[in-house]
Amino acid sequence: MTAKMKAAIFVEPGRIVLDEKPIPDVGPQDALIRITTTTICGTDVHILKGEYPVARGLTIGHEPVGIIEKLGSGVTGFQEGQRVIAGAITPSGHSFACLCGCSSQDGPGTRHGFKAMGGWKFGNTIDGTQAEYVLVPDALVNLSPVPDHLTDEQVLMCPDIMSTGFSGAESGGVRIGDTVVVFALGPIGLCAVAGAKLMGATTIIGVDTVPKRIEIARALGATHVVDFKTHDPVEEIMRLTDGRGADVSIEALGTQKTFEAALRVLRPGGTLSSLGVYSSDLTIPLGAFSAGLGDNRIVTTLCPGGKDRMRRLMEVVASGRVDLKPLVTHQFKLDDIEAAYDLFAHQRDGVLKVAIKP
Amino acid sequence: MTAKMKAAIFVEPGRIVLDEKPIPDVGPQDALIRITTTTICGTDVHILKGEYPVARGLTIGHEPVGIIEKLGSGVTGFQEGQRVIAGAITPSGHSFACLCGCSSQDGPGTRHGFKAMGGWKFGNTIDGTQAEYVLVPDALVNLSPVPDHLTDEQVLMCPDIMSTGFSGAESGGVRIGDTVVVFALGPIGLCAVAGAKLMGATTIIGVDTVPKRIEIARALGATHVVDFKTHDPVEEIMRLTDGRGADVSIEALGTQKTFEAALRVLRPGGTLSSLGVYSSDLTIPLGAFSAGLGDNRIVTTLCPGGKDRMRRLMEVVASGRVDLKPLVTHQFKLDDIEAAYDLFAHQRDGVLKVAIKP
Amino acid sequence: MTAKMKAAIFVEPGRIVLDEKPIPDVGPQDALIRITTTTICGTDVHILKGEYPVARGLTIGHEPVGIIEKLGSGVTGFQEGQRVIAGAITPSGHSFACLCGCSSQDGPGTRHGFKAMGGWKFGNTIDGTQAEYVLVPDALVNLSPVPDHLTDEQVLMCPDIMSTGFSGAESGGVRIGDTVVVFALGPIGLCAVAGAKLMGATTIIGVDTVPKRIEIARALGATHVVDFKTHDPVEEIMRLTDGRGADVSIEALGTQKTFEAALRVLRPGGTLSSLGVYSSDLTIPLGAFSAGLGDNRIVTTLCPGGKDRMRRLMEVVASGRVDLKPLVTHQFKLDDIEAAYDLFAHQRDGVLKVAIKP
Amino acid sequence: MTAKMKAAIFVEPGRIVLDEKPIPDVGPQDALIRITTTTICGTDVHILKGEYPVARGLTIGHEPVGIIEKLGSGVTGFQEGQRVIAGAITPSGHSFACLCGCSSQDGPGTRHGFKAMGGWKFGNTIDGTQAEYVLVPDALVNLSPVPDHLTDEQVLMCPDIMSTGFSGAESGGVRIGDTVVVFALGPIGLCAVAGAKLMGATTIIGVDTVPKRIEIARALGATHVVDFKTHDPVEEIMRLTDGRGADVSIEALGTQKTFEAALRVLRPGGTLSSLGVYSSDLTIPLGAFSAGLGDNRIVTTLCPGGKDRMRRLMEVVASGRVDLKPLVTHQFKLDDIEAAYDLFAHQRDGVLKVAIKP
Repeated sequence: MTAKMKAAIFVEPGRIVLDEKPIPDVGPQDALIRITTTTICGTDVHILKGEYPVARGLTIGHEPVGIIEKLGSGVTGFQEGQRVIAGAITPSGHSFACLCGCSSQDGPGTRHGFKAMGGWKFGNTIDGTQAEYVLVPDALVNLSPVPDHLTDEQVLMCPDIMSTGFSGAESGGVRIGDTVVVFALGPIGLCAVAGAKLMGATTIIGVDTVPKRIEIARALGATHVVDFKTHDPVEEIMRLTDGRGADVSIEALGTQKTFEAALRVLRPGGTLSSLGVYSSDLTIPLGAFSAGLGDNRIVTTLCPGGKDRMRRLMEVVASGRVDLKPLVTHQFKLDDIEAAYDLFAHQRDGVLKVAIKP
Repeated sequence: MTAKMKAAIFVEPGRIVLDEKPIPDVGPQDALIRITTTTICGTDVHILKGEYPVARGLTIGHEPVGIIEKLGSGVTGFQEGQRVIAGAITPSGHSFACLCGCSSQDGPGTRHGFKAMGGWKFGNTIDGTQAEYVLVPDALVNLSPVPDHLTDEQVLMCPDIMSTGFSGAESGGVRIGDTVVVFALGPIGLCAVAGAKLMGATTIIGVDTVPKRIEIARALGATHVVDFKTHDPVEEIMRLTDGRGADVSIEALGTQKTFEAALRVLRPGGTLSSLGVYSSDLTIPLGAFSAGLGDNRIVTTLCPGGKDRMRRLMEVVASGRVDLKPLVTHQFKLDDIEAAYDLFAHQRDGVLKVAIKP
Repeated sequence: MTAKMKAAIFVEPGRIVLDEKPIPDVGPQDALIRITTTTICGTDVHILKGEYPVARGLTIGHEPVGIIEKLGSGVTGFQEGQRVIAGAITPSGHSFACLCGCSSQDGPGTRHGFKAMGGWKFGNTIDGTQAEYVLVPDALVNLSPVPDHLTDEQVLMCPDIMSTGFSGAESGGVRIGDTVVVFALGPIGLCAVAGAKLMGATTIIGVDTVPKRIEIARALGATHVVDFKTHDPVEEIMRLTDGRGADVSIEALGTQKTFEAALRVLRPGGTLSSLGVYSSDLTIPLGAFSAGLGDNRIVTTLCPGGKDRMRRLMEVVASGRVDLKPLVTHQFKLDDIEAAYDLFAHQRDGVLKVAIKP
Repeated sequence: MTAKMKAAIFVEPGRIVLDEKPIPDVGPQDALIRITTTTICGTDVHILKGEYPVARGLTIGHEPVGIIEKLGSGVTGFQEGQRVIAGAITPSGHSFACLCGCSSQDGPGTRHGFKAMGGWKFGNTIDGTQAEYVLVPDALVNLSPVPDHLTDEQVLMCPDIMSTGFSGAESGGVRIGDTVVVFALGPIGLCAVAGAKLMGATTIIGVDTVPKRIEIARALGATHVVDFKTHDPVEEIMRLTDGRGADVSIEALGTQKTFEAALRVLRPGGTLSSLGVYSSDLTIPLGAFSAGLGDNRIVTTLCPGGKDRMRRLMEVVASGRVDLKPLVTHQFKLDDIEAAYDLFAHQRDGVLKVAIKP
């Protein structure tokens, strides 16, 4: 008789429910992780609403903290009982995409080896982490031991939010002394603020309106905040920069409005680093784009994964330079995950991120 | 009494005429060049049509080959009588833009130092090269002696067409063994083909329909050509690359159609390098952009200028690795420049570029 | 009874002999390749002479062309009977080194994951390719199918010589219009010449004295050759570059003399890209190093491996842009490999590379 | 009658004395600065001792803070009376070196345009800053206004120490989560620590023995300090990094011992970023260099200059992220500069840097 576990399953648009599923078998390259803490991401809400299609019956979630329960026969160098995280993105390590430095676009090992967003597997193309157990594929590439002195909550943002947010600054090429603007101070935008600070930006302007977010943004490194409800962000940013504009602007929401504003505040030669997940075509205004002659760049980044990325992010946490605990505003048992979705999807009670504990 | 010279002057939309103007005075940082050969650019046709506004009375043209007639008091290291070129873009060398590697966006020395397209001065913000004489600003930065064994025609493409076309490959980050697609095989697209080959691309696909352009593209390095009149370029390119797509696509026309196709042919993680001058807002289709999660880049480049750039391009010509003489399909006297505009603006008689000789 | 195969085995310093060994068992991530062509590398001669220590009884050789005989249970996407190559360096794909873009320094999956030269396994830490069969580890990362229209001889240089030589130009950061000097025109130096040309160098100066090598260097792109027996290379290169020096110098021998000359010919801000395997401490002369203030770089590169690298190099061969067949000057049966070592080690009869056919 | 000023002049090895000189005439591209604060650099002590030769009679010093007294006729965008700094390195903006991003190796405008260390002019090839007035060449490139709210002391490190120290981290390519080691915690090493922190290093190990330096290093970001008098630095660093080694090591002294140790602590694929001024040939130990096969890089950097660099560094100061005031341990009147040299050259009284006030 197969052992069972609880898992949050996508049933149909509008319904993610907690149900039972068999605990999965462990293939040679896999690791079975007993989840101790996971969370809900904005993308999961898109899935819930039916805006991002996944297979019915799939377990949702892509941010695992847990204990190695069982290792595949080919997975050496780890021990059962070890506490680990894995990235939201779990590259194979052997596709052409992986071998040319683009592992989040991981495709099949054969032929071309690229697949758009192909590195995102948990809760997208394979069962995810909002469950008692999750199977980590290509475990040699993806398991990353958590230092003993860090709590689950301290590393819970590493798999996705922190990796994505930091990559906004990294892909933007932030340099010492730069001016960086971050549009939208949700969890990813807040991590983009922290990433810009970590890379040496000295003027960091956040754009949002929610007081709690603004407060955390200041704690993480924002030197200025523009409230888009009371000020036109483009005008205000040009005023704050004395007409110069930003070296790098980071879009962390996924709307035409923020994308366009992020382009308009760039100095000539500046870079728009886009993190948002868009839901419709985008327009590039001719003037903001200098008709194509402004030496501007628009770069997009999908959350970097793999165990070296996780290791680096945990080094940042361990160093004490970035404290993301304030982002975890609520805690739920896995049994109560439907209530957690309800709170998070409606952004009630000042929620930023929830910790889910099986 | 001031000496006079002939110059092609923008009178009003629809009218560029040859007229007389005073030969300009030479300031301390200037050099006065007696033009021996210049040419007409697609941008000049935009000016002619009133689509790109310049001051009435301005001399048009930005591609100079000539002889130093007189050097400003601060310009050392050159001799009067030397044959030189200068880039279409003439950076000052001392703006913040110049000092942070973005010299085509050269702004005033004071305050911020960036100005969108500010490095483009000839025939835009100062008198240009379609004249008997032209004043080169910041001559220490911009004069580049022509090796004796190269003809005017051989270096005539260096100031703009070659510098711009090559930059399409350079900004795209072409690597050895890459697949590169170039959309539109006008003079700049042809130079982008040559640039992609120079940087090690092994599959270079050009898209156009004009037989003469296709023939030159093959001579410059295109391994495949797609005729957009007989084939859907996106489908055909995906077929030619066995479904993989391009590492780098170069847009060399400036339309929504080519911009969009250039995005659609990219593999995940690929780069769209945009050279075209657009005349309206652009749309980024959601799917072609992987909703912002494809690790793609869109980079724009304005023609790099300055004497080191010109030196390098002339090295390429001198090495015999790229022969752009076939691009110069027609020759006119400066006296006949109005006829030259007529031919070029209407793209008659298979014209690619014209040489204008005062 | 275990099947046997012939293999060239290191017995002791001075002795590599052809002997019999069991055909190896195939693990889940392995592929067994029936070698159709391999070759001898300069490194193998160091092993023969006892200058580079390997385990007694090890099969030598690291440049495989062959047919997949048997695939491990975990190796999907390939078919038995397919013709393939693998790189001389066979990274695992899952070490920290691999995951941070440094896969030739591949270490164990656990702890740090870096090991100096750890990616070089064939004929170094595991049995090599001078045999009837070889086991390719981490086959998903390392097998690269050979296009049907390319011969074994055409791709025989890809696993090591071509990958290493090209990396000299790549790590040096060669740009369009650069001046590059290559010290020593053995097989790797010749490939460095070809790589510099592929990346857009317009002045490529080779240094050697052997007429055959000089002839091939010119065919591959050298614009000048300096015979170090008749000229002082540093003086001559400074004369050829009109006192300017090189943007990039590539050391392809592994001696103090060439290393030092490669430093002396650099312009301020230039890069020495070192490929040679040195056998003693090196001295950096104070003056050639501008006392540490010249903005110079010294970069070293170990042959890049992995299937995407191999694919790219075969694209270069297939494009016809680089023809390395002239490097294969001699052919031997595997049965005669001891004679091949004798010829190659003594550099007799103008040998550059030998093809060994089991 | 020409007006006179006081200046610290190199008379002969062993003698720098305060004497009188004419206040210099102002050429069209110059600015005359009335020095309000300057300092003495380790390099000046090398000059004093005759270890670095300069012309007899030259005014020494290269770190200016002052007031614009008079602008050349070609210098627009600044006002007389403005408080400014200029970098220790004053590039022309128009040499080939400047135009290809290598401005500290600034050569003459003609021919090649590179000169080793050519950007270093103050107190080296032209009169320096330890005087009542100094002439800033190419003032359009080099003058950088000081924000009103910053004191002279706060920006006194920008021209050299801070620019050089930070460049150690920048040229080393420090990334978020890196381990960086800094050898020697003099003023430049201390700034390298601060630079590594600004770029996101999370483990920063300083090596020195002086308690005051160690204390400041910790304040600026060192997470560990190794006392080379009580521990073998290489062993201790390998222990601290659990055998992994450093991603980047920064040499900030200029000796064989520290250079060699900086190489030995690198992980495979790591970068040695060298800032020290060496006084004899260097030896690269074969093993520490992995015989040339470790994918290592040795990069050297001369202090970056120019007004954009100064602007960025002052942004860092203004942001409060790096406080270098503790480095200025002593203050002297210009009249007492000989005593200042005596104190500084003998490293008495815990001196780190002295402020000199005309």
